[in-house]
Amino acid sequence: MKIGIVGGTGDIGEGMAMRLSPVYDVVVGSREKDKADASCDASTNLLKQRGQECSLSGQGNQSCVDEADVVILAIPYRNLVSTLETVTGFEGKIVICPVNPMEKRDYFTFVPPAEGSAALLAKRLLPADVRVCSAFNTIAANKWRALDEELDYSVPVTGDDGAAKREVMNIVNSVSKLQAFDAGPLAASSMVEALTPLLLNIARYNKMRDVGIQFR
Amino acid sequence: MKIGIVGGTGDIGEGMAMRLSPVYDVVVGSREKDKADASCDASTNLLKQRGQECSLSGQGNQSCVDEADVVILAIPYRNLVSTLETVTGFEGKIVICPVNPMEKRDYFTFVPPAEGSAALLAKRLLPADVRVCSAFNTIAANKWRALDEELDYSVPVTGDDGAAKREVMNIVNSVSKLQAFDAGPLAASSMVEALTPLLLNIARYNKMRDVGIQFR
Repeated sequence: MKIGIVGGTGDIGEGMAMRLSPVYDVVVGSREKDKADASCDASTNLLKQRGQECSLSGQGNQSCVDEADVVILAIPYRNLVSTLETVTGFEGKIVICPVNPMEKRDYFTFVPPAEGSAALLAKRLLPADVRVCSAFNTIAANKWRALDEELDYSVPVTGDDGAAKREVMNIVNSVSKLQAFDAGPLAASSMVEALTPLLLNIARYNKMRDVGIQFR
Repeated sequence: MKIGIVGGTGDIGEGMAMRLSPVYDVVVGSREKDKADASCDASTNLLKQRGQECSLSGQGNQSCVDEADVVILAIPYRNLVSTLETVTGFEGKIVICPVNPMEKRDYFTFVPPAEGSAALLAKRLLPADVRVCSAFNTIAANKWRALDEELDYSVPVTGDDGAAKREVMNIVNSVSKLQAFDAGPLAASSMVEALTPLLLNIARYNKMRDVGIQFR
């Protein structure tokens, strides 16, 4: 199975690619293919130095989607609409949306679109047969990149298609000690996306860094 | 310091009273004083059998508020407005709102009032000098009652008055292994209240019971 990471050279995408590529074929997408190639070379070298096999290749975002069976939208919320309006060919694929619509005022706050969540907005913009799931919302960029650290967190996953959700939960469970939890239908994704600004507030007001969660 | 629990004979209130009464003077409030007295007698006996000292007394909700320095609104969301419209005398007190506005459709979903959260609604209805904090939102009734179990959870606390928030965090930290985290101003309480329907969904879709959280 091939996983495409749109925005794969970004803050979260690069670490995500390194964590997933020892298990899956990963296509790193970027608006500029050169940037994707450079990121893949650097990541492949880093993983080789650690003695880890990997399968990483760079592409423009469009080829990334074309090649992939599962697409992760590793992009900031502000780029979500423009990306989904310019990239095509999602038909029949599983799309994972880890996007959190939020703003920093005095504190971080959840500011969802009219659809209720970024995942529901993505579903509205994508072709009808795309199976959209939300996942990976609360894992901080620094944690994705810190390959020496175990990711010992719970990951809520939402989606309307049972088979797609199980596939996404398997992908989650393949990374370090991440543990996937079924958090219900895609309509419940707003409560998952609201977790991230909450965790950023917890970090800020308690002088912590990169706070995650565990359900127990 | 005297803590009054409005709705102190309800699902969450009774366990809360038993967990707090070995440390604080607790006044259990109910719409019917007889019910509060009976609940206090039962809880006092149970704690005595366990060799624990406690200070529990029963009152109507109005006397409960009159006597208390800190008031916990341990009531369901549907009773929040009617309670705050009929009970008076909150002036100058700290009020803890653990209320979560949510509905059960196919799944549990966060349905906040126009103010943004139950805590912000409470603040609007209460006198201007009441220092409202949200806390204890995600601790399940069964866990409050299960005195043999440690409560090993994180508790986000929001509020606009620093001194009141520290007091509330001290109260949280006095219970079992609960650990209080400053989650920002009261305006950030919506993201805390949205956690509870998320946790109920996690329990439901993963065949778990009384799911809580830890920040880490």
